[in-house]
Amino acid sequence: MEYRAAAFVAERLTQLGFEVVTGRQACLSEARMGVPHADEISLHEEMALNEGVNPYWLEQMRGGHTAVVGIIRGSKPGPIVALRFDMDCVEVGESQDPAHAPVKMGYRSRRQGLMHACGHDGHIAIGVGTAVQIAERIEELTGEIRLLFQPAEEGCRGAKAMIEAGWLDDVDYFFGGHIGLKSRTLGEVVASSSGFLSTTKLDVVFRGKAAHAGESPELGRNALLAACSASLHLHSISRHSGGATRIHVGQLVAGTGRNVIAEEAHMKLETRGVTEELNAFMLTEAVRILEGTANVYGVVCQREMVGSGVSAEADTALIPWIQRECERINRIHTVIPTLAMGVSEDASLMLRKVKERGGKAAYLMFGSPLTQGHHQPCFDFDEEVLGIAAELLIQLVFACPEWTVDKEDLIRTTDGDGG
Amino acid sequence: MEYRAAAFVAERLTQLGFEVVTGRQACLSEARMGVPHADEISLHEEMALNEGVNPYWLEQMRGGHTAVVGIIRGSKPGPIVALRFDMDCVEVGESQDPAHAPVKMGYRSRRQGLMHACGHDGHIAIGVGTAVQIAERIEELTGEIRLLFQPAEEGCRGAKAMIEAGWLDDVDYFFGGHIGLKSRTLGEVVASSSGFLSTTKLDVVFRGKAAHAGESPELGRNALLAACSASLHLHSISRHSGGATRIHVGQLVAGTGRNVIAEEAHMKLETRGVTEELNAFMLTEAVRILEGTANVYGVVCQREMVGSGVSAEADTALIPWIQRECERINRIHTVIPTLAMGVSEDASLMLRKVKERGGKAAYLMFGSPLTQGHHQPCFDFDEEVLGIAAELLIQLVFACPEWTVDKEDLIRTTDGDGG
Amino acid sequence: MEYRAAAFVAERLTQLGFEVVTGRQACLSEARMGVPHADEISLHEEMALNEGVNPYWLEQMRGGHTAVVGIIRGSKPGPIVALRFDMDCVEVGESQDPAHAPVKMGYRSRRQGLMHACGHDGHIAIGVGTAVQIAERIEELTGEIRLLFQPAEEGCRGAKAMIEAGWLDDVDYFFGGHIGLKSRTLGEVVASSSGFLSTTKLDVVFRGKAAHAGESPELGRNALLAACSASLHLHSISRHSGGATRIHVGQLVAGTGRNVIAEEAHMKLETRGVTEELNAFMLTEAVRILEGTANVYGVVCQREMVGSGVSAEADTALIPWIQRECERINRIHTVIPTLAMGVSEDASLMLRKVKERGGKAAYLMFGSPLTQGHHQPCFDFDEEVLGIAAELLIQLVFACPEWTVDKEDLIRTTDGDGG
Amino acid sequence: MEYRAAAFVAERLTQLGFEVVTGRQACLSEARMGVPHADEISLHEEMALNEGVNPYWLEQMRGGHTAVVGIIRGSKPGPIVALRFDMDCVEVGESQDPAHAPVKMGYRSRRQGLMHACGHDGHIAIGVGTAVQIAERIEELTGEIRLLFQPAEEGCRGAKAMIEAGWLDDVDYFFGGHIGLKSRTLGEVVASSSGFLSTTKLDVVFRGKAAHAGESPELGRNALLAACSASLHLHSISRHSGGATRIHVGQLVAGTGRNVIAEEAHMKLETRGVTEELNAFMLTEAVRILEGTANVYGVVCQREMVGSGVSAEADTALIPWIQRECERINRIHTVIPTLAMGVSEDASLMLRKVKERGGKAAYLMFGSPLTQGHHQPCFDFDEEVLGIAAELLIQLVFACPEWTVDKEDLIRTTDGDGG
Repeated sequence: MEYRAAAFVAERLTQLGFEVVTGRQACLSEARMGVPHADEISLHEEMALNEGVNPYWLEQMRGGHTAVVGIIRGSKPGPIVALRFDMDCVEVGESQDPAHAPVKMGYRSRRQGLMHACGHDGHIAIGVGTAVQIAERIEELTGEIRLLFQPAEEGCRGAKAMIEAGWLDDVDYFFGGHIGLKSRTLGEVVASSSGFLSTTKLDVVFRGKAAHAGESPELGRNALLAACSASLHLHSISRHSGGATRIHVGQLVAGTGRNVIAEEAHMKLETRGVTEELNAFMLTEAVRILEGTANVYGVVCQREMVGSGVSAEADTALIPWIQRECERINRIHTVIPTLAMGVSEDASLMLRKVKERGGKAAYLMFGSPLTQGHHQPCFDFDEEVLGIAAELLIQLVFACPEWTVDKEDLIRTTDGDGG
Repeated sequence: MEYRAAAFVAERLTQLGFEVVTGRQACLSEARMGVPHADEISLHEEMALNEGVNPYWLEQMRGGHTAVVGIIRGSKPGPIVALRFDMDCVEVGESQDPAHAPVKMGYRSRRQGLMHACGHDGHIAIGVGTAVQIAERIEELTGEIRLLFQPAEEGCRGAKAMIEAGWLDDVDYFFGGHIGLKSRTLGEVVASSSGFLSTTKLDVVFRGKAAHAGESPELGRNALLAACSASLHLHSISRHSGGATRIHVGQLVAGTGRNVIAEEAHMKLETRGVTEELNAFMLTEAVRILEGTANVYGVVCQREMVGSGVSAEADTALIPWIQRECERINRIHTVIPTLAMGVSEDASLMLRKVKERGGKAAYLMFGSPLTQGHHQPCFDFDEEVLGIAAELLIQLVFACPEWTVDKEDLIRTTDGDGG
Repeated sequence: MEYRAAAFVAERLTQLGFEVVTGRQACLSEARMGVPHADEISLHEEMALNEGVNPYWLEQMRGGHTAVVGIIRGSKPGPIVALRFDMDCVEVGESQDPAHAPVKMGYRSRRQGLMHACGHDGHIAIGVGTAVQIAERIEELTGEIRLLFQPAEEGCRGAKAMIEAGWLDDVDYFFGGHIGLKSRTLGEVVASSSGFLSTTKLDVVFRGKAAHAGESPELGRNALLAACSASLHLHSISRHSGGATRIHVGQLVAGTGRNVIAEEAHMKLETRGVTEELNAFMLTEAVRILEGTANVYGVVCQREMVGSGVSAEADTALIPWIQRECERINRIHTVIPTLAMGVSEDASLMLRKVKERGGKAAYLMFGSPLTQGHHQPCFDFDEEVLGIAAELLIQLVFACPEWTVDKEDLIRTTDGDGG
Repeated sequence: MEYRAAAFVAERLTQLGFEVVTGRQACLSEARMGVPHADEISLHEEMALNEGVNPYWLEQMRGGHTAVVGIIRGSKPGPIVALRFDMDCVEVGESQDPAHAPVKMGYRSRRQGLMHACGHDGHIAIGVGTAVQIAERIEELTGEIRLLFQPAEEGCRGAKAMIEAGWLDDVDYFFGGHIGLKSRTLGEVVASSSGFLSTTKLDVVFRGKAAHAGESPELGRNALLAACSASLHLHSISRHSGGATRIHVGQLVAGTGRNVIAEEAHMKLETRGVTEELNAFMLTEAVRILEGTANVYGVVCQREMVGSGVSAEADTALIPWIQRECERINRIHTVIPTLAMGVSEDASLMLRKVKERGGKAAYLMFGSPLTQGHHQPCFDFDEEVLGIAAELLIQLVFACPEWTVDKEDLIRTTDGDGG
């Protein structure tokens, strides 16, 4: 739960003069997906309180409503420009290796098994840094700037609730972005990322029947083995000639005592595809496998969809404009017009929404070397990317009102693909 | 951890006039197996304290030394008779069904995921009830009575430590026993159980390499799948023409985040065989499978032996004597001379020790109907068995000094077996 | 197909003066199980003809009716005594090792992939040898001797057809037997084998959908993988506390070209149990697994029962009589009253039939060292066992009419068992 | 084996005035891969003879040297232009459905389990048709035309031997092509196919130990289960973010008798990748899985590489020229400049060789609707494609000498890709 981060953001934005909306106004409660159990939420609220989080914000965010929206308006009319930053961490235990910079420098994660292994802490820093400079240049501002600090990006669980709270309805220009990914050189920027993977997140429970494994194994119905078999079969779903697909069982927890036949097994899994059709293919296969495996073991299988991401395309029309702004920034030496992400991003839902309403949306990559890949225990980026990214976003924010996108500027890029 | 039960026993035995030994004198610290982590032990000690357990006992038992020995001696010389009772619970979540008697009557387990699903709470009751009557008949006593209250029977982790503390060294007669098992009728008693399964308990960890499951799945080394594959293969170890064998993976915990390739997977498993050779066959196969599977997935496999039970045979020479004593008890209507258990019992190590030193050892079954099988969430027995069992043990305790076992009484029984 | 062996037997028995019945009179055509395809049968008939088999017998046996019954009657009335010998081979390729006696001595199997790896060629020799001596002692004979030469014992496919042709209906004494098995010492005889495993033989076909494995793997439905998964899961059916069980997939043939997704997969499997209930448990589990796996892969599963053996018990009442006759034979030095076989035997159906009608039935083991276990490429026995077995059977045949079985002789034996 | 087809081609080319080279001159014997066993080759030679194949050609081709080269030269000097046609079939059983055109029209495959399910019979027809017209226009010819009729394309086993016999060494222009694939419309042509998958073909044998599955299953080492487990694990090799990969086990044959533990299991499998690095990744994983699985089952694994295809790129420089020639043909209405194949093609080795030596190479797709996909039992194409393809090849053959490829014509196509 992002209580500390969200409260910090809300506090700072308020200090900077932003109008701040958080809690149920910032995200529609029932549109959230994969929300943790009430007692886990309570535990995190208690920890946040103990760690000195301002009770004012905590009260507003209670029940896991940790989205934060910061709004600031110029004196003259102009477009609504939204910037989106995600704030959540990953369930990876951070390395304790003394050579790992966060250990050496003292900012290693304080939570066991949780870590900013995808750089979203960097995104928060970029967002707050951007806010500072916008506030400083308030008199130049036309139109409205809307900073969207989103919880629960991992698992594609949080964007929908901010969209359904209305924050993307009237946006003219939307910018999201990510540190690293396929761009691993400082000073390199990808203007517009494509190839967001469509994805579905499933929680699965197999329920069998316990028995004494020594005395009467034949009386049990083994949920652990059902989950094991399902995992193997899921990972052997056929590749698809239509393009990239993914399947992954990330967590499996099954059984109680060593000599008791496991009555329950819990799995967290996800399917992906570079198009929605491909993700649908994976999901159909996965569901058939889960049900078939339950039959093989004579157990029952329950499934819950706890997250879902769509494929999306950024507006290629914005590419030349973004390239132009990049050229004005010294520290950016290379601009790649477009590149496939090869991952899912909850932002894709926001891109879609903005485009549906006639707005334009881009998703950038901010190049940085990484000590280890995303979601790995030694993940770390070069902090210099933070300043570069903030500088670019400021530049874009203040340039938007002047953009006049021509048909001429439209660049068609066909993304071929393998399987 | 059995802090509350053990402290209760120690307290009652003291009140009844028994000399009570507990802590490191009762069980040799380093001979214990599968001891939980220090912080889990501390947590249980704290909980015990909060629940009102006498700090005097807690202090002695600190660090998980929860064995209790109660000693009482008659005025005249005579044999040393040991009675053994196990006290631990099973990692099974007790049913919340209102029809389940412990729910209805208010004695359902207070610990989430832990339950007396094997009747060891009944064994404690039998032990204390027996102690009460022994104390009342102290003036009839010859020789010494030694009550052994053992922790950690499940997983065969506790007997060794009590043996190595010396408590079985000079025992002349040893009686253990169990409620239920293959004897499901009230008033039925099995005089001498045979066919204790030899067993080995293993904790296994697979260590792989985390990676982002969407962005670069090929960089990971999947510990979750390795454990799944190992589980399936373990359960397909060939049956053996030499007799009954067992293999069981009771617990599997793998992975962290849904979209992170699992870096670690933890398994709890056990092998069994009706002879030590058969268990050795199972163990050899299991180890080869674990190592081979690690290679299949390019991960590393670590194994720790956390428990071990031997096969053993009770003394058939005692059968006629036990039958005779049973006949003197009204509530016992059937005596089965011998029956195969089909399970493992940590007591087998004690039986061996006693027999090695020239003593005689028996292991009884106390018949009772069960609401559901051992290690199942609705397990419950008929409380009337408690009185019957205690009455029989008292009878045996006071009869031992008079026994003169003849060669004639020796009965050869061929042990049939299961599969 | 046993054309050569059966024709040889029929020819010799005729020469010895036996009345010989073969073809459809010897075995009820529609009661046969697992009969090969018509063209395979034709091929074997053609080969038999080319190898000089008498067309007279071949004509009678046409269509795979290779059972042979030889009947001889004494001048005085007396009991009907049936001896049964099986004649078929196993689908094992015989070793080409020069050290393997059949290679060295020139009697290695001439058929690729087929071999007398269970000693049934020895059984034929015993049967014919017995016939020779019976013929020589024809004037001593009372009652009727019926020699049953059975095809298709492997897979338990042939006994039923001889039973349904009526040959066991009026039998007073029945003797079957086997070289080796659990008796590996020359001069040792097991008087009465128990523990015949009940068994079911299944042929399974998975049918999927072919596709180009490189161009469009997603269009296929992979029958090969379905069969692989089913095989693994079948072998992991839980052990049973009620006694010994078996499961085995002995053959799997799947797929055509390397780059074509397999459209078909064919499996030959069998379940066993020391009781019919245990075999039924295995079969129920197996069928659920086969169907569930088909669903996992989106393929279709067809099953055909091609063989079936029942559990049976030989008459223990015959044991003392058999022991007595054994004592009269010099070369027999040890008689084991009873021993569990641990395998299935099609003869069990005959034992049942005889006992149902009030007759008495025994099944012997004729001890012999083996160079390698049954069904292995270097299997061979000591030929001296042939004379011993024939001598014992002659002795029994002529002793039967004098037997008066008393209640006293009845020995209760509890059968231990494997697992 | 392609004896009939190759002899037919050799005969026709000779009649048309081509110089014909076949046998060991056409393909280097020791450079062939995955050659069938000598007795299978003999069988096919005998069948060919019985079916009336000219013994003259058969003699030359003996031992499976079925490559045929037809050479014709014009009177004036000019470039060497090579056309390549593959002749082999696939191990798929052709449908017997009366609605399947080859059944209806009487040209269904006469060989059980073998079928022209990839259209190579059409390629032969195109090749011979092209030869007819070249012969007719012999006086227009400049330079040399070399027709390469290749055996063993399936499995990428034949191209290498023709290359090493020297036929590609001095080629200036090379054209290969395929009916159907990704082009399913009559009158459509793909000028230049890219994305040939690099591939490796493996034959694998697991060797275990036979045993009687009922009597002593523990004595066996189960090769069948090892192959099953390996197949499942191979199909679950991780997808790769670097682009399309494939893995496929197309055939598995294991075991002998139903109640014998399988001593041997034979697998035919293949790996693929859109780059050589990706195929190498798949192969490395596959080999580790095969070895690891052998250890899991205590069996031995042997591997043989029986085919290998490289990734390759056609010359994009030829695209505009090909487009121009296509425009001159009425029946061609659409030309797609370039398209990824998504399969492997043995021709890729030839493309590489030609390009290495400075020649130019193209690989076309000839559009045709298909009744069912490649390698499926009802595969069939529209015969009209044959004439269109031949017309285009003639056009290209006679145009080559006039081509002057400019730098300007060079079109850069970037092939993005998925996973």
